Amino acid sequence: MPRFKCIVTYDGTHFAGYQVQPRKRTVQGELERALKKLHKGEDIKVTASGRTDAGVHARGQVIHFDSPLNIPLGKWGIALNSLLPDDVAVLGTEQAPDDFHVRFDAKGKEYRYFVHRSSRRDPFKRHYVYQYPFALNTDSIKQAAADLIGTHDFTSFCSAKTEVEDKVRELQEIEILEEEDMLIFRFRGTGFLYNMVRILAGTLLEVGIGERDPNSMPSVILEKNRSAAGKTAPPQGLYLWKVFY
Amino acid sequence: MPRFKCIVTYDGTHFAGYQVQPRKRTVQGELERALKKLHKGEDIKVTASGRTDAGVHARGQVIHFDSPLNIPLGKWGIALNSLLPDDVAVLGTEQAPDDFHVRFDAKGKEYRYFVHRSSRRDPFKRHYVYQYPFALNTDSIKQAAADLIGTHDFTSFCSAKTEVEDKVRELQEIEILEEEDMLIFRFRGTGFLYNMVRILAGTLLEVGIGERDPNSMPSVILEKNRSAAGKTAPPQGLYLWKVFY
Repeated sequence: MPRFKCIVTYDGTHFAGYQVQPRKRTVQGELERALKKLHKGEDIKVTASGRTDAGVHARGQVIHFDSPLNIPLGKWGIALNSLLPDDVAVLGTEQAPDDFHVRFDAKGKEYRYFVHRSSRRDPFKRHYVYQYPFALNTDSIKQAAADLIGTHDFTSFCSAKTEVEDKVRELQEIEILEEEDMLIFRFRGTGFLYNMVRILAGTLLEVGIGERDPNSMPSVILEKNRSAAGKTAPPQGLYLWKVFY
Repeated sequence: MPRFKCIVTYDGTHFAGYQVQPRKRTVQGELERALKKLHKGEDIKVTASGRTDAGVHARGQVIHFDSPLNIPLGKWGIALNSLLPDDVAVLGTEQAPDDFHVRFDAKGKEYRYFVHRSSRRDPFKRHYVYQYPFALNTDSIKQAAADLIGTHDFTSFCSAKTEVEDKVRELQEIEILEEEDMLIFRFRGTGFLYNMVRILAGTLLEVGIGERDPNSMPSVILEKNRSAAGKTAPPQGLYLWKVFY
């Protein structure tokens, strides 16, 4: 049966996260519901590049599924979008090799974390950025970020609620962008642990306000203890931006 | 009792409009609830520059109210914002003369209407712009807009559900801005009728797609009949941007 790969975007605000959970509204649940309708009641299993938490957004989540339907590639998005709620959309569809796997074949991922540097509440941004009213030293943040890049055991930057044993990951890039009153962290890596991006962002913000030494990241990594790193930044600032294959 | 004037912004998505209605969530209702808490249970009546419909947003709504509280001007926003839900915020407060009236003293208003020219659904914009997938001729729109400027009887551009008798208004300016895939209508006038901006936007879009002659606006105005104008554009693209005093 042919395998299809889709790029999917969603506003995570009203989802209990990506992955199906009983009696909760999830992105996977909505995608599978739409596919089931399109397949006249047949269950179609969707596999994603990875989960996202409640409130976390995606610009470029990638999924795969198998389907016997003979729909022209350019029409899959139209068909699925007509059946999906308006906070999820399929951006593009291509046919993939039968043995393609959206998670195992991913070479890396890019996440972005948006910090709104403002003491003025903005109702239009409340679900889409982390509003942060404190003055930030971006040079300190950049200095600390440089020490996080590389292949490390990221146990300190992983939620204790995880079942993964091997916590060695390669963080390839952290870019700090400043656009008007927005500070954007761009993280690229081969793989990320549970809550890793939010803990990285939260820790770098603590460096930015002077609560942590910009040179302390190597020792935080060495401790291999979640309590050595900073707070988990809130979900609404986080976007799964792109998955690389 | 001193009178205070505040600039208020809100995301209209989850409101049944500005004005208080029984058993509905409204902006006025939330403002009066916050003021009542601040005044230890005393009812404080809020007056606005005008109503906005369900789903319509405000960047610069203006309200006034009277209060005996001796709060420094810079602290009013902090006090009210701590009591308001996160989709409404007070941006600034000043003391006004005792006879100031936020509606009667307004010299004009600016509304903006945002059209997203795209056939690609964007979950992040669904509540904040009107997604419009059809090709638009902006020269035709500008030509038609020029004929709408001036002092006219705008009966054709007013919802039939209105009690106002005098429908003569002065439309001072219509600017059409293009920013990437966004078309923004900026309307400035001395006053606006019920649904007037949304009907103006809907009619200009029909000109833009070639459904209406760009030279037909004078005759639409002359008909003084709601059915002569175009469809009412949906609320989520509309922002009360500024009130002039």
